[in-house]
Amino acid sequence: MIRRRGALFVVSAPSGAGKTTLCREARLRLADLAYSVSYTTRVPRSGEIDGTDFWFVSEARFRDLRDRGEFAEWATVHGHLYGTRASVLQEALNAGRDILLDIDTQGAAQLRRRYPEAVLVFIVAPSMAELEQRLRERRSDADREIARRLDRAREEIAMWRQYDYLIVNRDLKEAVDQLTAIIVAERARTSRLALGLPDLDLPQKEVRH
Amino acid sequence: MIRRRGALFVVSAPSGAGKTTLCREARLRLADLAYSVSYTTRVPRSGEIDGTDFWFVSEARFRDLRDRGEFAEWATVHGHLYGTRASVLQEALNAGRDILLDIDTQGAAQLRRRYPEAVLVFIVAPSMAELEQRLRERRSDADREIARRLDRAREEIAMWRQYDYLIVNRDLKEAVDQLTAIIVAERARTSRLALGLPDLDLPQKEVRH
Repeated sequence: MIRRRGALFVVSAPSGAGKTTLCREARLRLADLAYSVSYTTRVPRSGEIDGTDFWFVSEARFRDLRDRGEFAEWATVHGHLYGTRASVLQEALNAGRDILLDIDTQGAAQLRRRYPEAVLVFIVAPSMAELEQRLRERRSDADREIARRLDRAREEIAMWRQYDYLIVNRDLKEAVDQLTAIIVAERARTSRLALGLPDLDLPQKEVRH
Repeated sequence: MIRRRGALFVVSAPSGAGKTTLCREARLRLADLAYSVSYTTRVPRSGEIDGTDFWFVSEARFRDLRDRGEFAEWATVHGHLYGTRASVLQEALNAGRDILLDIDTQGAAQLRRRYPEAVLVFIVAPSMAELEQRLRERRSDADREIARRLDRAREEIAMWRQYDYLIVNRDLKEAVDQLTAIIVAERARTSRLALGLPDLDLPQKEVRH
């Protein structure tokens, strides 16, 4: 049996690009993929469940966790704090489990420094016009809020080169196929295989790299 | 529309690992994937078609092409010559088409030097015992030939670290899923995207790499 280290899959996208739906669909297809539930100080939206979508905490509690170094990454987005608990990542990786994270570009950059082998995936809508339309269709946001999200989207899109993969979310099925393919492919990377494939009589030492 | 450079997908495997079937199935799923038909001096097996499975040529013709620098890689395998025509690869890449190559470990190493961005995929049977059984089930080879193929398989497997991906061919469907996923994922790599995503107002210059 080939042993493999767990891998971190970090997905970022501007608000409205379809990231949450994409991550949910990919998790349905890959049952063995763990998910990192982020901590946030923002209030739950309708239908969001504490511990499933986010851990909803007070700002005092967030700052306490942060100051104790409990977060592998944290960031301020639209005035709210978001963070990923380091122990959750470490437990998954130690158990050889892959884990999916849905975080913003600032958090992704922090995770890349902490875990250089993390796989960073960026999702974009096909165009800014399409992104704006999707944000308007949500009807949950005021015009000023939409303008703010579009400004932030431009800033985030400018970071696309720090990502390993780019998915243009034109069609949900195609985008889920791509995200799933990235995870399946990364699992087959020779650089992620633990040393020794005894059943195949593979040499333990490196032959050439 | 995002432009992308064509990519080379090089698949190698010891004889009996299921490489030919895997490549055929992956090509059926990915209709836009070009295929590089190798040149060989060996005689056609039953059912093999000139120009589809291989270009079957005389040794004199092969040496002539080789001496004129027409091959991007060439190697001697089991006493026969095999080679890949450079012009076929270059035409596909220039047209932005991805191309699949089914070649041995020596040829793969040559292609890596010539095309550092090539994607190298190695396929193995689950064990040497399984590989031997598959070779015996072919019934086309004498015992001495089988022993020779197993010896060579050990030499080839020792080269697995020069590959980017490793597929253990336990189950055909699963292995085809993996090979297809590797191709789909590599197409979404930011490093393969041509500069400029004008529709997304992405900056032309590098932000961070």
